[in-house]
Amino acid sequence: MGEAIRLIEGSITTPRGFRAAGVFCDIKQLGTGKGSDKGAKRDLMLIASDCPAAVAGMFTTNQVCAAPVKVSLRHARKARAQAIVANSGNANACTGAQGMRDAEAMAGATALALGVPARDVLVCSTGRIGLPLPMDRVGTGIRAAAAQLSGSRAAAAHAAEAIMTSDSVPKEVAVQFHIGGKRVTIAGIAKGAGMIEPGMSPSGKRPASQPQHATMLAFITSDAAIDPRALKKALREAVAVSFNRITIDGDMSTNDTVLALANGMAENAPIRSLDDRDGKRFQQALNRVCLELARQLVADGEGVTRVVNVRVSGARSQRDADHAARAVGNSVLVKTSWCGGDPNWGRIMDALGYSPARIVETKVDLGYSAPGSKDITWSLRRGLPAKVEFATLCACVAPAEFDLHIRLNQGRGEAVVYACDLSEAYVGFNKGDVSDPAALGG
Amino acid sequence: MGEAIRLIEGSITTPRGFRAAGVFCDIKQLGTGKGSDKGAKRDLMLIASDCPAAVAGMFTTNQVCAAPVKVSLRHARKARAQAIVANSGNANACTGAQGMRDAEAMAGATALALGVPARDVLVCSTGRIGLPLPMDRVGTGIRAAAAQLSGSRAAAAHAAEAIMTSDSVPKEVAVQFHIGGKRVTIAGIAKGAGMIEPGMSPSGKRPASQPQHATMLAFITSDAAIDPRALKKALREAVAVSFNRITIDGDMSTNDTVLALANGMAENAPIRSLDDRDGKRFQQALNRVCLELARQLVADGEGVTRVVNVRVSGARSQRDADHAARAVGNSVLVKTSWCGGDPNWGRIMDALGYSPARIVETKVDLGYSAPGSKDITWSLRRGLPAKVEFATLCACVAPAEFDLHIRLNQGRGEAVVYACDLSEAYVGFNKGDVSDPAALGG
Repeated sequence: MGEAIRLIEGSITTPRGFRAAGVFCDIKQLGTGKGSDKGAKRDLMLIASDCPAAVAGMFTTNQVCAAPVKVSLRHARKARAQAIVANSGNANACTGAQGMRDAEAMAGATALALGVPARDVLVCSTGRIGLPLPMDRVGTGIRAAAAQLSGSRAAAAHAAEAIMTSDSVPKEVAVQFHIGGKRVTIAGIAKGAGMIEPGMSPSGKRPASQPQHATMLAFITSDAAIDPRALKKALREAVAVSFNRITIDGDMSTNDTVLALANGMAENAPIRSLDDRDGKRFQQALNRVCLELARQLVADGEGVTRVVNVRVSGARSQRDADHAARAVGNSVLVKTSWCGGDPNWGRIMDALGYSPARIVETKVDLGYSAPGSKDITWSLRRGLPAKVEFATLCACVAPAEFDLHIRLNQGRGEAVVYACDLSEAYVGFNKGDVSDPAALGG
Repeated sequence: MGEAIRLIEGSITTPRGFRAAGVFCDIKQLGTGKGSDKGAKRDLMLIASDCPAAVAGMFTTNQVCAAPVKVSLRHARKARAQAIVANSGNANACTGAQGMRDAEAMAGATALALGVPARDVLVCSTGRIGLPLPMDRVGTGIRAAAAQLSGSRAAAAHAAEAIMTSDSVPKEVAVQFHIGGKRVTIAGIAKGAGMIEPGMSPSGKRPASQPQHATMLAFITSDAAIDPRALKKALREAVAVSFNRITIDGDMSTNDTVLALANGMAENAPIRSLDDRDGKRFQQALNRVCLELARQLVADGEGVTRVVNVRVSGARSQRDADHAARAVGNSVLVKTSWCGGDPNWGRIMDALGYSPARIVETKVDLGYSAPGSKDITWSLRRGLPAKVEFATLCACVAPAEFDLHIRLNQGRGEAVVYACDLSEAYVGFNKGDVSDPAALGG
């Protein structure tokens, strides 16, 4: 039973009993919207389970929270649900009462097309804030997607494409493991390349200890049999160590949502606790799925040329470690130095110094390694430059991904934040083109 | 006595009894350092009062605090001082015990050259972090500057140039007013274009309520006669409404320092309280000097194309108003939209929503005006788009400076933050060129 969790080629239709679809219904209203626009990116997707599934959700803690988040929050509070509908191109955020009616209508139209209750449908939107959804097109899209639902690998890829906004590639992952001889699969798709520093909670409310800062969306399917309460707890833990640990630009979105459906069709002995062997294995597998997706998001962040895993240890508390890692990972000056391949430890020390974490300059060690390696090249020991050539440090920060190790040497608090550089391309992309309002980003 | 405070053409040598100098001593060691490098920017300055002056200082609350800050903190705690020495090109930060010896040696060398006690000399440095100061060159520079000290307008301009780093223009200001028939002058110079979101306090310690985020330096001279305790209090207040209200990139420096010297040579009846008419006038004039300099810093920020005055009102508290204004003023996505001239209110709402301030989406009003104007064009009323053309909003955010009005409609808390856009030029400048380490920024 020591069999490892295996990463497999697969996606959200790999777990038994899940079908998906992604269609083009021209939500941005750039063309005819008749589905005949050749080569246009899909913009509406459905995921459906063949039977009611245990459901869990994690939602943005932004106080300005999109209508679909409010609807999904309510529907995910129940034990079970059966489908997810999502669109890109329009966030349905800051849209008032009309937005709420539209989000509910999306759930309703999906329910009608699938023959399930509306309260068993979860709804997500991503795209530009403040525009009303073109509900005629959304309705057409939902009916087309429902008609195309399929358990094929291609159908999952279509769904992954349909949630992309500024993403350059779709994000999909699947893992398999065994519980009591039964093969269990967990899979997911995700999107998000800007407005990314999620801080999600199950209630959408901000815990006092929660970092206060994407639209990122992630949808996870599994054929595991698991108690809904255990699934909710497992998703909370998995998001805490994955999506809630990434930052692209420090801007938390109004729409961040992670949803998980587990339909039991693997027919394993139902998981009731995360503390026993089966529960722990499920947790480990779910963490893997979420972390793989989260890291794909950072690597595909807008204009990103380097992924930097900021690993803080020796903080007075975990909270201090988190503060320190986020200050460094969100510092505009640190991020621009990474873009230039400049191992500028002065800017890192500066960011640590203004973070809310307790820092003692003469105790700080800074170093670099390949991702996950313990072979660290130190640039700073106890606050002072280490005996190392500048060219050696440049070589440490040249790769497309590296680990930055920060030891505060004050306690046992540890945290990692998956961060990235800030490039001219990010600015160019996000400053937009006001002569073409329809093409402006979220 | 209702005479206004007049902005005059002048600088730090305009108040009676102050002399200044700025020299080139090649602190970055780019050339020969012999002072013979034609056309090179000056990099070391002195300001000296003809007699001991009341002194006040405000210092970075960054926990990683440069050696000169520690020395100046100590010397500014006293009632009086007589001179300021400052260099650009090297921050003398993260330089350990050697850095402390070097900062003290700068004070000592200046004291020797001027014939005053070392404890009456304040010391500042700005530039790259983590490199030892070339003390032979600094010593040569101090002696040269002391020999060149002059009350001329040109000497002040040389001092203003010597503290510039990435600044494109020197910053100088002077105001005059009368106290009891005596003409009093307050003047200042400042520098800072990146690593700018100061949060300074008189002790360098962070008050619980203080925003936790430049190198910015500002040196203020006055011929007012004022009790040192009143001057310290006045400077604290003036910095709170000026330098501590600006942000260029949200990065608070290790070296931020504002110093004020008031030598009494105006021979006004000494100001002992800020609560009487004379005290209030002095405060008002000092605020004006600090605010003019602070706004010059933002306008000349690295790559800045637009200055945006973020004015929040109706917050539950002043603290909430400050949080909301800083969240908007530091949001990478909001700043890039300003760069593009995009009146993207969705990103502003998003930033408000993740700020620690209490926001109710359906209560928020957003609008634009010319700087200081009450003629507001609303883009959002009570959380919903106002009836206004997109082109009208584009015209609001097109000028090089505009006011953004955010009304939270929840209470009486107000705050302003002087912010700016984020351009490709900022990123290009700060990513540096690792093939030329000597040219890398701070």
